[in-house]
Amino acid sequence: MDLDTYLATGRGVVDEALDRFLPQEDARPAVLHRAMRYSVFAGGKRLRPILAMAAVEAVGGDPRSILPLAVALECIHTYSLIHDDLPAMDDDDLRRGKATVHKVFDEATAILAGDALLALAFEALSSPGMARMRRPERVIAVIGELSAASGSRQLVAGQMSDLLSEGKPVTREDVEYIVWNKTAALIRAATKCGALLAGGSLEEVALLSRYGENLGAAFQIKDDLLDLEGDAAKLGKAVRKDEKRGKATFPRLLGRDEARALMAELLQKAQDAVRSFGERAEPLVMIGGYILKRVN
Amino acid sequence: MDLDTYLATGRGVVDEALDRFLPQEDARPAVLHRAMRYSVFAGGKRLRPILAMAAVEAVGGDPRSILPLAVALECIHTYSLIHDDLPAMDDDDLRRGKATVHKVFDEATAILAGDALLALAFEALSSPGMARMRRPERVIAVIGELSAASGSRQLVAGQMSDLLSEGKPVTREDVEYIVWNKTAALIRAATKCGALLAGGSLEEVALLSRYGENLGAAFQIKDDLLDLEGDAAKLGKAVRKDEKRGKATFPRLLGRDEARALMAELLQKAQDAVRSFGERAEPLVMIGGYILKRVN
Repeated sequence: MDLDTYLATGRGVVDEALDRFLPQEDARPAVLHRAMRYSVFAGGKRLRPILAMAAVEAVGGDPRSILPLAVALECIHTYSLIHDDLPAMDDDDLRRGKATVHKVFDEATAILAGDALLALAFEALSSPGMARMRRPERVIAVIGELSAASGSRQLVAGQMSDLLSEGKPVTREDVEYIVWNKTAALIRAATKCGALLAGGSLEEVALLSRYGENLGAAFQIKDDLLDLEGDAAKLGKAVRKDEKRGKATFPRLLGRDEARALMAELLQKAQDAVRSFGERAEPLVMIGGYILKRVN
Repeated sequence: MDLDTYLATGRGVVDEALDRFLPQEDARPAVLHRAMRYSVFAGGKRLRPILAMAAVEAVGGDPRSILPLAVALECIHTYSLIHDDLPAMDDDDLRRGKATVHKVFDEATAILAGDALLALAFEALSSPGMARMRRPERVIAVIGELSAASGSRQLVAGQMSDLLSEGKPVTREDVEYIVWNKTAALIRAATKCGALLAGGSLEEVALLSRYGENLGAAFQIKDDLLDLEGDAAKLGKAVRKDEKRGKATFPRLLGRDEARALMAELLQKAQDAVRSFGERAEPLVMIGGYILKRVN
């Protein structure tokens, strides 16, 4: 299996689904829909949707059957980036090599585009394709998982604590709390919900959940390492910001070498969680290796 | 039937449900949960939840069976108020006689508290009480209605267009678009979703939807009239702001007398829509009269 081809194919499928699902740019209010499309199509890796589809494959399902989940995951991820970049939050001008939404449009439009993307995620999860699924109770469970993952005890908790920790002494407990909530929670929800919708057994759902959680935490450590060591041109955003702001990250807490070791350990845990799926989990295992080596 | 008692009882039931459902103030991150509770318990009328429960009664259901919907409606409404009040939006310092969330906390916390309340609405709609309902397909339909009502083609569309219309010449089409999307859409969703969850027939759902839409538009006209004529002390917020900002409202478009006549006409339409329900719709009919006379 060639991972680059796998990821490129996945991105294509997700991009098409997003294009079908997002309101057109001329739909009223046009400026709002332009802002939503600008941010969603700014060159994301589509990691969360691809992981959800790979989890579906791991339990023997058809990845195309869960496209509304793929769309929802990317809408939630994009909404969180738009709001995180706002002047009142991380105040970032550049994301994926392009000006951030509040720079291209304005703050009000950025806030509203983020709000609308969060709502749109739940429109996708309750769209006709989902309503027709054989197990409506699993659709409701998935909505429960994703709303909790987006809420004040996970995604928003992570962002709030990330802001509150700026410039403060870094404790291990704080860094773990931030990484697990800001990043790992939504990635865990991606693989868990994929498995749930594809009819996975409770054990399969638990294993794919463990995979996502560990992979997600490793992904965030890599992000924090790239902020320290990465190439601003390849990353498409400013680097060494975390240090300047005194963010609570594993590299700052442990040093780079130990952070790298922790990342490798988490990726090992993720890969171990899906060994029992055999060949069907090959993409999930390979994505672990990709995260280790990624440069953007 | 005494409407004041009915509304007070409804408020009590909704407040209790909100208190049970919202994370406690000491739940981490405490500042976020304090901000969420501050805004939710700042003295709202709970009109949308009460209307949803009254719609349940109209189709012969038990209003207490849809408390998660009541909670979700109030979370969505409160989120929209927090974000509308932000400096980048309407820049309001006072709401219901209290300082707005970004004044008491800060902008970042206000943005995140709003985000978290929107996510929490969908947690409520997929909570165990909903997952156990006899008709899971109706639960999914309700999530579809509420996510659409909160999204870029309804609630957020209304707020975006409201901002874009500031200081521009007022057209009837613009005012209708803003009023129907910013306010009527969520109130229509309240009565429609109440009827859906309580097992109403398609015809009953359509009638209660028509009731909500017309009542909601009338409610917004009353709001706009109160901005012109109301008492700031009773309203708990500054008055005559719409005029200063050149907002697109019916009183500005038509003059106060004609706007009042349109409001009465819309309330009549709302009340007519539920005549066929007889006694069971008494609260809905009386709420129409309450909106005409309310002073805050």
